[in-house]
Amino acid sequence: MFSVKMSDVEETIKRIQSQRGVSGIIVMDSIGRVIRSTLDDEQTSQNAPLLHQLCDKSKSVIREIDTSNDLTFLRLRTKKNEIMIAPDKDYLLAVFYQKTSS
Amino acid sequence: MFSVKMSDVEETIKRIQSQRGVSGIIVMDSIGRVIRSTLDDEQTSQNAPLLHQLCDKSKSVIREIDTSNDLTFLRLRTKKNEIMIAPDKDYLLAVFYQKTSS
Repeated sequence: MFSVKMSDVEETIKRIQSQRGVSGIIVMDSIGRVIRSTLDDEQTSQNAPLLHQLCDKSKSVIREIDTSNDLTFLRLRTKKNEIMIAPDKDYLLAVFYQKTSS
Repeated sequence: MFSVKMSDVEETIKRIQSQRGVSGIIVMDSIGRVIRSTLDDEQTSQNAPLLHQLCDKSKSVIREIDTSNDLTFLRLRTKKNEIMIAPDKDYLLAVFYQKTSS
């Protein structure tokens, strides 16, 4: 019931990638193992553990503030780009957006 | 040149607080000391160090990915609310938003 078919993952990635400004996508499992990435190997192996760790830290901060609360979405705006992280029970999706002028 | 007048802080807080959905604001200095908060003392002393720590962690993750990059804005969406953190050179602004139906 909780398993996700690889074809569903691919379809979701395609859909996200077609959005304007999307420069990369990493899908990880709950312990941070990369399931799928559109970044090159070097970028993937550098970014994935850092983003997984940061997402875990964010979750624990939210729960420490209120034990009955839970993180649903993390968004990091930087000088150069924007990173959105959607944690799920079994998966973690990280999407990189190029900085747009708007 | 980098000093901020308390009246400016108060004015900014008033302006943010008047926005729809804003339930609380904490202003900290760069090392996490609370300058001003609209939350009660207990909430402030619980939330401020956690959010400051998380913001620091986020900054270091962004710099580890790319040393020439920098975090400008952190947004945490949770089941119950939304927290936006704007780090600056000398200050850190955290704004709490109530969950709206939209």
